[in-house]
Amino acid sequence: MKLSICLAAFLPLLVSSTSVQAPNDYPSVTQPLLQKGMREMGAYSMLQELTSKVGARLSGSPEAAKAVAWGKAKMEQLGFQNVRLVPCMVPHWVRGNKESLSMTGPDGKRISLSGTALGMSVGTPAKGITAEVVEVKSVEEAAKLGAKAKGKIVLFNGPMDATSINTFGAYGGAVGQRVSGAATVAKLGAVGALVRSMTLDPDDEPHTGATRYADGGRKIPAAALGVKSAERLSAALKKGKVRVHMVLSCKQLPDAPSANVVGELKGSVYPNEVIVVGGHLDSWDKGTGAHDDGAGICQSLEVLRLIKGLGWKPKRTIRVVLFMNEENGGRGAAAYLEYAKKTGEKHVAGIESDSGGFAPRGLNCSLPAEQSAKVIKWQSALSVFEANQLSFGGGGGADVGPLREIGAVLFGLQPESQRYFDYHHSNKDTIDKVNRRELELGALAMATLIWLISEEGL
Amino acid sequence: MKLSICLAAFLPLLVSSTSVQAPNDYPSVTQPLLQKGMREMGAYSMLQELTSKVGARLSGSPEAAKAVAWGKAKMEQLGFQNVRLVPCMVPHWVRGNKESLSMTGPDGKRISLSGTALGMSVGTPAKGITAEVVEVKSVEEAAKLGAKAKGKIVLFNGPMDATSINTFGAYGGAVGQRVSGAATVAKLGAVGALVRSMTLDPDDEPHTGATRYADGGRKIPAAALGVKSAERLSAALKKGKVRVHMVLSCKQLPDAPSANVVGELKGSVYPNEVIVVGGHLDSWDKGTGAHDDGAGICQSLEVLRLIKGLGWKPKRTIRVVLFMNEENGGRGAAAYLEYAKKTGEKHVAGIESDSGGFAPRGLNCSLPAEQSAKVIKWQSALSVFEANQLSFGGGGGADVGPLREIGAVLFGLQPESQRYFDYHHSNKDTIDKVNRRELELGALAMATLIWLISEEGL
Repeated sequence: MKLSICLAAFLPLLVSSTSVQAPNDYPSVTQPLLQKGMREMGAYSMLQELTSKVGARLSGSPEAAKAVAWGKAKMEQLGFQNVRLVPCMVPHWVRGNKESLSMTGPDGKRISLSGTALGMSVGTPAKGITAEVVEVKSVEEAAKLGAKAKGKIVLFNGPMDATSINTFGAYGGAVGQRVSGAATVAKLGAVGALVRSMTLDPDDEPHTGATRYADGGRKIPAAALGVKSAERLSAALKKGKVRVHMVLSCKQLPDAPSANVVGELKGSVYPNEVIVVGGHLDSWDKGTGAHDDGAGICQSLEVLRLIKGLGWKPKRTIRVVLFMNEENGGRGAAAYLEYAKKTGEKHVAGIESDSGGFAPRGLNCSLPAEQSAKVIKWQSALSVFEANQLSFGGGGGADVGPLREIGAVLFGLQPESQRYFDYHHSNKDTIDKVNRRELELGALAMATLIWLISEEGL
Repeated sequence: MKLSICLAAFLPLLVSSTSVQAPNDYPSVTQPLLQKGMREMGAYSMLQELTSKVGARLSGSPEAAKAVAWGKAKMEQLGFQNVRLVPCMVPHWVRGNKESLSMTGPDGKRISLSGTALGMSVGTPAKGITAEVVEVKSVEEAAKLGAKAKGKIVLFNGPMDATSINTFGAYGGAVGQRVSGAATVAKLGAVGALVRSMTLDPDDEPHTGATRYADGGRKIPAAALGVKSAERLSAALKKGKVRVHMVLSCKQLPDAPSANVVGELKGSVYPNEVIVVGGHLDSWDKGTGAHDDGAGICQSLEVLRLIKGLGWKPKRTIRVVLFMNEENGGRGAAAYLEYAKKTGEKHVAGIESDSGGFAPRGLNCSLPAEQSAKVIKWQSALSVFEANQLSFGGGGGADVGPLREIGAVLFGLQPESQRYFDYHHSNKDTIDKVNRRELELGALAMATLIWLISEEGL
């Protein structure tokens, strides 16, 4: 569009809205944050560093160790206080260098499939496995296969629901296939599992992610297929018998030492009241973990960088935690919870960003709405960053979630969700998919919330 | 992020919000639209066609003629009624095949600059022009240059305001340099103008757009510079005298015949009451005009495709208008206004999408809020598509704007604005920057609004 005639048309958006909203009571909070944040774009600069100097950083890998060192050095460079590591042991799964999948349909032609091992999967023998394929659309359907699964490779081909406007809802409805599909059909004697990628993008890029075996149960190799490959396989099955040949070199090594990275600004009035802000430092070994969760890590660092840079002295301690091992174990979150219990500090709140570095829409909060008068009052400040859609009764994420046990109120940043699963856990999760302004707006919304909690309590 | 622990955390977003919002009174409208739209993704399919088969389509060009033919054929294929062209004459500016810019600073080194002619600019002589550069940050500052502008090339280097959260506001604050900078300094005897690209992306891609000369005034060649080039030039100027050499082969040809493309579903109760929905069919000659305004065109077509495909019979006539020549003349909008006056129909409303195919945030409306009870009532339906932020007193856009003269209430789709000016008027405006779900959500918000206007009036 061009300017001229239509300029008058869009400016009013900034002025009025029917949303029943108080005027911003906190310009002295939001304006300095806005000015500093949008000019300096600190979150994006740090994300450029993390994704280029460290890259993908799967728990237990040398790159994850490099990420820990990067996070610690970054906090020290930014002048955070009490920079330290909270150690934990993490699963150490490696993909290896051999992954190949192909199908041979009723016409006898062998066609290559785009696939990649699911995280935590066992590998195949070196020469691979070959078996006939049976298709299901859900774990429930798979559980009913009974003897039909025996000796087979089961294709889990239930798509995410395209009509779910919040794509996390669509993910929630489909991801059980990835998480427990293999375990379910292993019990029935299946020899392998293939899972349609958890994405709404109809391309052929495979999206990995953790699968979980039953404790003490059989373990069968499991791989994600690109959507087009899953559909190609499904179409071939409609014509007759299809055999898949699958070679995966992945394996589980002994647990490895790792750590959460922690740094803070000490509270000037209530130093033993702690507000935790964080995301996860580990990523899958695809792409460079830019949205998942480099974005959350860099936004969390940015929150403290901004507050410190503005010379503000928080009443309560604001602590950044870069959690290790969210993707395949949650060991960092568990270790931090144990650590927090030992410190005897009061954990007031946990704020997590792990839904991608997209433009913020709002925040969720674990308090019921009727106990959230303060948060609702802060909505006017959050609206400066277009993050004023609040929801109550849920909140947080996998990493701050455990802090509920010690009384923390949980918050999760809720960005625009349409693009997240296009990139998630795949080679497409790279920094070119991150817009610096959208990323920074999320950091600013978090900084606003955190500063207000620090000043006013919850 | 992964599922499991955190699933409970994000689902509540769908359930509750503190926005004071009525429950959706219109599930019989929104649900069928949602189901059909998000499964079929018609807007994106059409945009793939438009951008690949037609591409960039500057007014007067063979590609613009091809776009008109494509739009007409598409409407006919979709079974719209009364498909027709509303002719207009359009400016015919051509870039030519020669554009080169370089600077020679105090160190005597010649450095290439990334630049491109502004639309409607006159060209330079074949061998180019060379002149010393003087820098300003605004049109106001330029107007005060007086004799200092004489014989010079003036660099307009005022950046868009990064702290304006709505980027259209930032654009509005800076684009005067592009629109009237050249005309302003031409009066003072300058020989050329260079304008920092209207973008918030600090790369070196030049963004074109129209410049306007004063009627009967001097015309001097004007080009956009990529941000990095503008900053390089500015940095050199701080060290001493800098001369720029500029060759532009662009020129203005005689006006060319073209047309708006029009099609509709006739109203079953009030056929003479018309709701216009549209965007502009022309684009600049950079990229493929995917967001600007292929998105708006394809969303508008999708509105009618959905309504027709659902078998709904609108009470009022819903008319899609693909406006020609929004970018450098507005001749299509003027021609349609004249046409509308002649038909004697009552134009109830004009809805425009020309702010990019990003996830919708809301709509603006030309009515004051106190006359908008119906629109506010519809907010609950728009919230299904996350387009419930309403603003009043402005509305529409460059193409439907003129319909205000004949009583139409104007609406403009307001998508998330952070990324728009990264791509706008540049080679980066291509379909890979469009997310199919975000595009479709915009179409669904428009379809909801339009259907409700058709059924309930305004």
